[in-house]
Amino acid sequence: MKFSPLINELIESFRCLPGVGAKSAQRMAFALLQKNRSGALKLSAALHDAMEHVHHCQTCRNFTEQTECEICRDEQRRATGLLCIVENPQDVIAIEQSSEFKGCYFVLMGRLSPIDGIGPAEIGLPLLQQRLTEDDVKEAILATNFTMEGEATAFYITEMCKQLQLPVTRLAQGVPIGGELEQVDSNTLGRAFKTRSAI
Amino acid sequence: MKFSPLINELIESFRCLPGVGAKSAQRMAFALLQKNRSGALKLSAALHDAMEHVHHCQTCRNFTEQTECEICRDEQRRATGLLCIVENPQDVIAIEQSSEFKGCYFVLMGRLSPIDGIGPAEIGLPLLQQRLTEDDVKEAILATNFTMEGEATAFYITEMCKQLQLPVTRLAQGVPIGGELEQVDSNTLGRAFKTRSAI
Repeated sequence: MKFSPLINELIESFRCLPGVGAKSAQRMAFALLQKNRSGALKLSAALHDAMEHVHHCQTCRNFTEQTECEICRDEQRRATGLLCIVENPQDVIAIEQSSEFKGCYFVLMGRLSPIDGIGPAEIGLPLLQQRLTEDDVKEAILATNFTMEGEATAFYITEMCKQLQLPVTRLAQGVPIGGELEQVDSNTLGRAFKTRSAI
Repeated sequence: MKFSPLINELIESFRCLPGVGAKSAQRMAFALLQKNRSGALKLSAALHDAMEHVHHCQTCRNFTEQTECEICRDEQRRATGLLCIVENPQDVIAIEQSSEFKGCYFVLMGRLSPIDGIGPAEIGLPLLQQRLTEDDVKEAILATNFTMEGEATAFYITEMCKQLQLPVTRLAQGVPIGGELEQVDSNTLGRAFKTRSAI
């Protein structure tokens, strides 16, 4: 059917959101038009402002609207000398929510994936190397995902750290808290046996 | 964790979309920042334009950016004298996709629901009455939903049409095409028996 051009354009534009198909886009457009125009205008402004002003932190590559992000500017965090290397900004959020880590981050914004043309330069490894060399980093903690590509990325960075004679660690693998043994996959279970700890 | 204010604002703003919770809002914000800034800016503009310029058609109450929507301006459609009364703009889309109906619409933008304070005025029934009186409507087709509130709305409009001595019809109910009898609920099946047709 023929929608009015502006409604068409709105529905089409919603399709850029992840997980939003034709039907959801339609539902979103009409829901906002019918019930929440002020919310929609707020979203419009927030989108515009974020896309125009948010860029990468010059130190850790995380998203920020300042030259350097809040975590990188925190003297106490820098003083720990701990640098946690993650794939995405969402990983930073997940780790921050655990309240376990009080050091600094380096956000790769991706992982090594030669098939997709993503090499060391694309995930900021030259900047990481520079930081590991110049900054007072005492330990690099690899917190890339435990997927094939995440592991390859971790391996690459490990080699880099070894050349710089920098201690490097990887997050522990094992049975999750609250996990039932019969539900855990055999690789994880095997790893948990191999790296069991004295109590 | 402390996001930068603009990212916080963006994530919070996504929550106005139907079916979008905290986690999805975060995913949308980062997906756009990372991979589709031009799409996000387009969405921002589309939202702004639609919210500023789309309003109700003065004749049928559907959404349009003109004074009167395209369907209402179609002389051929008006000439049929058929007026289909639906609850939402989405219902117009669904009916148009069936290609069965070539008349005009009246969009209630809701249904009678006294508990929520939605009475005849809120769903534009004065405007509908005026249209049924003044326009050359030969038949009112009630296509409100077959829910309790949709049926109550249909009943109310039926009474209105009867006072105006206007023929009024309701969409047929029965087993859906491709439907298996054992899957159909008993009320629908009972109705299909009662309104069976000669072949």
